[in-house]
Amino acid sequence: MVDADDTEGGHPLHDAPVAPTDVGLIDGLVTTRAIRRYTDEHLPEQVLRDIFFAATRAPSGSNRQPFRFLVFRHGPRADAVKQLIARGARAIWDAKFTQDGYASGSGADAASPKARMAATMEHYVDSFAAAPVLVLPCLNRYRAPDPSEGSNVYPACQNLLLAARAYGYGGVMTMFHKEVEADLRALLDLPDATTIAATITLGRPAGGHGPVRRRPLGELVYEDEWGAAAGWAVDPPATAFTAAGPPTVAP
Amino acid sequence: MVDADDTEGGHPLHDAPVAPTDVGLIDGLVTTRAIRRYTDEHLPEQVLRDIFFAATRAPSGSNRQPFRFLVFRHGPRADAVKQLIARGARAIWDAKFTQDGYASGSGADAASPKARMAATMEHYVDSFAAAPVLVLPCLNRYRAPDPSEGSNVYPACQNLLLAARAYGYGGVMTMFHKEVEADLRALLDLPDATTIAATITLGRPAGGHGPVRRRPLGELVYEDEWGAAAGWAVDPPATAFTAAGPPTVAP
Repeated sequence: MVDADDTEGGHPLHDAPVAPTDVGLIDGLVTTRAIRRYTDEHLPEQVLRDIFFAATRAPSGSNRQPFRFLVFRHGPRADAVKQLIARGARAIWDAKFTQDGYASGSGADAASPKARMAATMEHYVDSFAAAPVLVLPCLNRYRAPDPSEGSNVYPACQNLLLAARAYGYGGVMTMFHKEVEADLRALLDLPDATTIAATITLGRPAGGHGPVRRRPLGELVYEDEWGAAAGWAVDPPATAFTAAGPPTVAP
Repeated sequence: MVDADDTEGGHPLHDAPVAPTDVGLIDGLVTTRAIRRYTDEHLPEQVLRDIFFAATRAPSGSNRQPFRFLVFRHGPRADAVKQLIARGARAIWDAKFTQDGYASGSGADAASPKARMAATMEHYVDSFAAAPVLVLPCLNRYRAPDPSEGSNVYPACQNLLLAARAYGYGGVMTMFHKEVEADLRALLDLPDATTIAATITLGRPAGGHGPVRRRPLGELVYEDEWGAAAGWAVDPPATAFTAAGPPTVAP
């Protein structure tokens, strides 16, 4: 048990409860979208506190809490980190644009979902360094790297995105740091056992939220046998569907 | 775009909207605990549908949706899977009990948090096969194994646990399948490219919810520099703290 007075005395937020909102839990879960266009509005510090408090309530194995969140807003160091990752974002998106054929097939029609996604990504990458908040969720490793170690950090990332939504903000999780990881680790002087798990940007959405599109539920939820849709795995009315994944390259 | 009528016609749940609940998003994020004791109540099929609908609205890279949920409730096949993983649970918990010294130090005092956690785990493992719902979240790999691939399945797992909480149920994510993974893969005839990401049990909590305990926020949220607590990372009033991780072995 930690004596809170030893670590946190004096700051006014210590007396401020986490602010409730009128977004319901189920509503938040089913309507939180990736938000890639932001106004230039800053997030108030109480909102940041509340969002990260909610994020860090996520579970981890044996409650070890090996997740850490490194936050960048403004100032020379934040700008340097944002600009470095913006270069990674540009490289990754340019490669993906070509590889996934965003300019071909239906991508040639500016009104197609494919072309609209490309325009959104182009704008996101172009203005990446101007995102109000950049977050690097990190993981303090205590075992050898393993695909399941993400169970100790990505639930907290999801809580972060959901909490942002609760307060009228939004964000998206990317892997843009991967392209510049060595430079980034050197700039941040990260401990060897700490790995960067994601790059998340947050801000006030410039546009509106909209429906989340997924495969039909029966393709995602099986019962008893691999590939056998659960009998009850039927989508509710007005569900919006999409095939999985990025556009395929036109033949 | 998929024509829903082709895949889902006729089932009454297709006409049932996802049920709202009175749990708020922020409240759900900050109060959802690991639930390891269940009544023997079954989950109604609409609740299952709503929980898994919410789970599958979680994001994934390029919206590929490589997550799949394999659900087991009752019947010979479900029982076989539950009993197999129960053996894994027993082996993993027994090893952890010894390794982490649950019987020594404060663990010798039955009223200590350490001894109470050991009792909860003992009961959980002992009655594992009787959990109302067992879920194996899986990941269809499309790249080589990598620690960050969990970003495509653990957000959906967290949505699952949060959605269960919204409807008055609860659960916990474990890695108990790892001990029996080869037998389990054979029993389920999983495709080679599919990996089991976790083992989750769900049910109606036998006890109540309670406060989530974490490290002080300033130990988890940094700004600008690694290890430098964000100025606004101060816990709200009445936060319950705990040191990280399992008990250390008494010297």
